[in-house]
Amino acid sequence: MLQVPRGTQDILPEESYKWQFIEQRLYDIVKAYNYQEIRTPVFEATELFVRGVGGSTDIVNKEMYTFKDKGDRSLTLRPEGTASVARSYIENKMQHNVEQPIKLFYIAPMFRYERKQKGRYRQFVQFGVEAIGVEDPLIDVEVISMLMNIYKSFGLKSLNLKINSIGDMESRSKYNEALVEHFSPRIGEFCEDCQSRIHTNPMRILDCKKDRDHELVKTAPRMYDYLNDESKAYFEAVKSKLEDLNIEFEVDYNLVRGLDYYTHTAFELMSNAEGFGAITTLCGGGRYNGLLEMLDGPSETGIGFALSIERLLLALEAEGIEIPNDKGLDLYICTMNDQARSVAASLLHKLRERYISADMDYENRKLKAQMKDADRKNARHTIVLGEDELNSESVDLKNMDTGEVSRVSFDEIITKLEDL
Amino acid sequence: MLQVPRGTQDILPEESYKWQFIEQRLYDIVKAYNYQEIRTPVFEATELFVRGVGGSTDIVNKEMYTFKDKGDRSLTLRPEGTASVARSYIENKMQHNVEQPIKLFYIAPMFRYERKQKGRYRQFVQFGVEAIGVEDPLIDVEVISMLMNIYKSFGLKSLNLKINSIGDMESRSKYNEALVEHFSPRIGEFCEDCQSRIHTNPMRILDCKKDRDHELVKTAPRMYDYLNDESKAYFEAVKSKLEDLNIEFEVDYNLVRGLDYYTHTAFELMSNAEGFGAITTLCGGGRYNGLLEMLDGPSETGIGFALSIERLLLALEAEGIEIPNDKGLDLYICTMNDQARSVAASLLHKLRERYISADMDYENRKLKAQMKDADRKNARHTIVLGEDELNSESVDLKNMDTGEVSRVSFDEIITKLEDL
Repeated sequence: MLQVPRGTQDILPEESYKWQFIEQRLYDIVKAYNYQEIRTPVFEATELFVRGVGGSTDIVNKEMYTFKDKGDRSLTLRPEGTASVARSYIENKMQHNVEQPIKLFYIAPMFRYERKQKGRYRQFVQFGVEAIGVEDPLIDVEVISMLMNIYKSFGLKSLNLKINSIGDMESRSKYNEALVEHFSPRIGEFCEDCQSRIHTNPMRILDCKKDRDHELVKTAPRMYDYLNDESKAYFEAVKSKLEDLNIEFEVDYNLVRGLDYYTHTAFELMSNAEGFGAITTLCGGGRYNGLLEMLDGPSETGIGFALSIERLLLALEAEGIEIPNDKGLDLYICTMNDQARSVAASLLHKLRERYISADMDYENRKLKAQMKDADRKNARHTIVLGEDELNSESVDLKNMDTGEVSRVSFDEIITKLEDL
Repeated sequence: MLQVPRGTQDILPEESYKWQFIEQRLYDIVKAYNYQEIRTPVFEATELFVRGVGGSTDIVNKEMYTFKDKGDRSLTLRPEGTASVARSYIENKMQHNVEQPIKLFYIAPMFRYERKQKGRYRQFVQFGVEAIGVEDPLIDVEVISMLMNIYKSFGLKSLNLKINSIGDMESRSKYNEALVEHFSPRIGEFCEDCQSRIHTNPMRILDCKKDRDHELVKTAPRMYDYLNDESKAYFEAVKSKLEDLNIEFEVDYNLVRGLDYYTHTAFELMSNAEGFGAITTLCGGGRYNGLLEMLDGPSETGIGFALSIERLLLALEAEGIEIPNDKGLDLYICTMNDQARSVAASLLHKLRERYISADMDYENRKLKAQMKDADRKNARHTIVLGEDELNSESVDLKNMDTGEVSRVSFDEIITKLEDL
């Protein structure tokens, strides 16, 4: 039997209303923050991700869906959103826009070939924002403020915001040297990935899941001690302004964003909820002052974050928060014979034209079964069309909540329901 | 320079608000018709489309993005939506749901490797609906009613609905025999595709773009004359009920849906608008009573249609219809110094928490430039934060439409804007 591809899922009506609700909420929040939507293609030139995510990352080395199109171009289903936004920013020369910074958001499917596990899908949906063109602690704070408001708007409480600074390129490079010196003598005790990381990106040893309990990870030098004065000042400004906004956070000196272009502010939001499971990160983000240049773009700086809707849903479940389902009909039309069904179809056409939600029976069921169907469909009003009603061109409009019944003509049904 | 992949496009903020508007409208209309959303993965097992779209079609033979994943499975980016919905219906055994028919819709990117031309993209977005589980002319009419209401809701006028019946399997098979007899003697005069179609799917010769003016196409037998009594009765019922709804249509005996599983009702909506260009089809659909069985599913019948949002946008443009852009801010905060900027950031956090859209300057511009920015951002209110305002913790809230100014405390700003 044909099945949904391994590691992916169908979102059926029992679930899709939740996605609609979340997306609507996200649209409301980005509007409040004055971010505009960008939609980039599902696939990009493979080179974009090799350069923009990094050749030393698991994403690029192990997890990409890469293929050739019929024109022999190497394409890749996007594994994350920032590289695509950066590509579009450069291609469309957005640094020349009069409104700065450029504040963009996306809600889009991403693709990573990962091992199947709870909360991880090979196709998943990320909501992300990017603010490009201004380097100012207030922008970092704006982005974090949005992140917190999103999660709080759903009523989530077990949230733990962690932040750190990776400093500027100078600080980062000095810190990497110190890490190499620290780990090199005993790198043989670390996992294979870490043995390679020490050459490509030593900072990533600090957030290795396999080696997290190794003595040397615990005694490693702290990034903070290698920040130059400018980087320290930037970090202090971000922290103090977060405090001004009463946003609680915890500094985590081991929090690194692995990619080469990350600088200064890095943050992650974790869930503490019991039952949320082993994967506790809800969302990650950071400042990327090197990315655009790395892609041959202008030397503009940016900051952003991305969250997975699938994880958000898990967090809501873990905290017992239900998303309202507004399933329901304004009107259900019961029909007693074939002529009534035809009349019902015409009436439905007119009601629906006015965005009044309405439905009827299409299975020739008995009246009792139709009333049951109306109830299942959560109909707020019902009418029954039989011979009498057709002759008099009027019906008893019944309010299913109050039980109230009023006699109305066919034409009045529409205005009556429109008024509600 | 890295570029958007050939044949695809970025949808930037200058355009994305139109997509948001159209999608919101579609959500409103499907709600009125009581259709629920389904979201299937971007890729499926290649076999699904070979079987569900058909091995003899251009889509499958020439236009699919097919690749192997790291588990050596052949996957294909979906070229259309019906096969995926059918797969999900079968996999989730929706024929056992108590509510019938199953009424589903999707808004999703589709992928076809086609030659670049106006209005055609290799990634495009389709909105589609499927009603599965009931064979009844009223369902056909419901689907067509929705289609017409969608286009009319945008104010489009130059619409031309064409319908036809392909009959049931028996009628269809007799008709195909007649076509083979008609075309065979002179098939050498037809294009290469048609020479192959006569063996795989003779009906498709009738809608071949290259051979449309061939004498034999014009003198070909008409499907209608081969419909058996049941098929004729079904077609007559659909037509008469469309008339009941005052939906104008034209019967086009050459309108065929090429795929093997189509039966009975077939329809297309064309635009007559000047300047719409050579591609005039806005939307196509039809009844597919054979599809589910062909995919080893139950013998349930279905009907649906799909439209491309890109084409809808072109049609709106051709008729000079503009989509409203509700870009704008509730409040723009001008700042006179660094302390004011920090206070502004805190205020923004609180406003945005309440879904009040607000922004400030992040570029340290002079007051005049900030006011210009506020104007560009279409701010409905402005305040200026300087030393006096910080000391008194109050500001002049200016309504930019009326010019009206009122003195309010910091706390009152929020309640004041919330009330508007």
